[in-house]
Amino acid sequence: MAPPEVTLQSIQAARERIAGRVRRTPVLESETLNTLAGGRLYFKCENFQEGGAFKARGAANALFSLSQEALRAGVVTHSSGNHGAAVARAARLRGVRARIVMPENSSAAKFEAVRSFGGEVFMCAPTLAAREAMAEQFIRDTGAVFIHPYDDPRVIAGQGTIALELLEEVPELSWLMVPVGGGGLASGVSTAAKTLRPSIHMVGVEPAGADDAYRSFTSGKLTGNAHPETVADGLRGALSMRTFGLIREHVDEVVTVSETAIVRAMRTLWQHLKIIIEPSSAVPYAAVLENLVDVRDQRVGIILTGGNVDLDALPW
Amino acid sequence: MAPPEVTLQSIQAARERIAGRVRRTPVLESETLNTLAGGRLYFKCENFQEGGAFKARGAANALFSLSQEALRAGVVTHSSGNHGAAVARAARLRGVRARIVMPENSSAAKFEAVRSFGGEVFMCAPTLAAREAMAEQFIRDTGAVFIHPYDDPRVIAGQGTIALELLEEVPELSWLMVPVGGGGLASGVSTAAKTLRPSIHMVGVEPAGADDAYRSFTSGKLTGNAHPETVADGLRGALSMRTFGLIREHVDEVVTVSETAIVRAMRTLWQHLKIIIEPSSAVPYAAVLENLVDVRDQRVGIILTGGNVDLDALPW
Repeated sequence: MAPPEVTLQSIQAARERIAGRVRRTPVLESETLNTLAGGRLYFKCENFQEGGAFKARGAANALFSLSQEALRAGVVTHSSGNHGAAVARAARLRGVRARIVMPENSSAAKFEAVRSFGGEVFMCAPTLAAREAMAEQFIRDTGAVFIHPYDDPRVIAGQGTIALELLEEVPELSWLMVPVGGGGLASGVSTAAKTLRPSIHMVGVEPAGADDAYRSFTSGKLTGNAHPETVADGLRGALSMRTFGLIREHVDEVVTVSETAIVRAMRTLWQHLKIIIEPSSAVPYAAVLENLVDVRDQRVGIILTGGNVDLDALPW
Repeated sequence: MAPPEVTLQSIQAARERIAGRVRRTPVLESETLNTLAGGRLYFKCENFQEGGAFKARGAANALFSLSQEALRAGVVTHSSGNHGAAVARAARLRGVRARIVMPENSSAAKFEAVRSFGGEVFMCAPTLAAREAMAEQFIRDTGAVFIHPYDDPRVIAGQGTIALELLEEVPELSWLMVPVGGGGLASGVSTAAKTLRPSIHMVGVEPAGADDAYRSFTSGKLTGNAHPETVADGLRGALSMRTFGLIREHVDEVVTVSETAIVRAMRTLWQHLKIIIEPSSAVPYAAVLENLVDVRDQRVGIILTGGNVDLDALPW
């Protein structure tokens, strides 16, 4: 059976499925940031999400979409970031095993996060090939289900639930800005937002050092990130055919920002919103701060994707 | 005319007076922090208050309690911290001049905060005597009204409004913990909370390096802080007769915490709540983290007083 496509309906179903299993996160505003921007900025705070990142949504939707029978050998994924912890958490809620393959050079905090949710950590060499090989072996040997971090319609639909909440809370949004890494968030959110509000201006923002979405979007041909280099470690992944297709359909504009702009934006948001966000979260606001987009008189939703930061290694 | 005493009624009146002029701040919880503590902790986030600190409440109540006639020469205060910016902000809302006397060694961010609200900064030598002398001269020369940071019933009543909001949102609170500096917050909050809920357990927490409230509370005699030394720069002040009296009447327990505990608590709150708080805000939670109080099975309100931190000089 082919997995269902991502639609407003599948996102609405995801929302019901994950209700009570993830948080409805708050939306923050700051007078100072509004004045600086010349428009109204509404920050959707997924840094307050369970596990500290929006990934909780997609993982919960994936795990609760699957039958107990399908899940009898548990789930497996590979991740150096927030997705691993999110899958471990969703698996614990679902009462099944989670094997998380992690590069041996992941930070202590990331290992700790996966383990704190009862996930079983398996270390591998720090290459994509090694991660995929080890995950595939688990799938073959145990029959565990693979939960991809973004190339999965259930995961994408879960991330799309953010747009439903945000548009409910701020119905008058005229713009919506999201960071783009592998494109799961951008796909889900843009599908929901554009279906509900065809006139909304959807903007994806990417670090210039990992600009595959920009190049793919501009050329019309899917291209990868050969050597991603950015402080926004959640955005080093590259689009898949599926996320590229959804983004082409629903996103109006893809913008890239410099490393300096990302760090400056992160610091500005810490200072004025008084919240902790990770570098990837600061990427859309970086485009506003650098005047790469004109948001004057717009009502702009900005998704802050996560707040998992090493407090001993801040980028300024 | 003697200023009115602080009562539940004056605090309720303050709430109406400042409504729309300060924020109703959110209350945050964290599963991890609850598990660590063995009780339920409700964090009242005054770091999200206008100007980044609870001081906005007392200043707004003071300014809007005074007639235009009384305010014709504006207001004056001295402050190295959040009170100066709060007075500047309230004065702007009220449409009157604010002169803020500040020690010349205050941080650039503090000067900037006062100026951003239209306050006029006057620098003085970094001693209490110099601050008081300059402020007194303005009062004498101009007829401006002095707004004391805490030894003022209107300021105390303003700070007390935090307790009204918190008890409305979490009526089942059994404990309430606040940091103690000059005692304005502790006085107002404890007056409101104990009047509404006589059974609530009120705890004041102080840095061991500025423990005048602890010594005064224990000995029954008001004593000062000769040489306050603490990272919690908002808590270096000493109780006045007025705040000491209110605290003796309404607070059940005063606890002191070490500098190490304060920094550890601050970091733990940053990490798990994903919010930015200043060291003074972490002081009550430090007592929980160090097991200096037994909050097991309690429902504990904790007031996080502010979020104005120098991001280039974190204490870890």
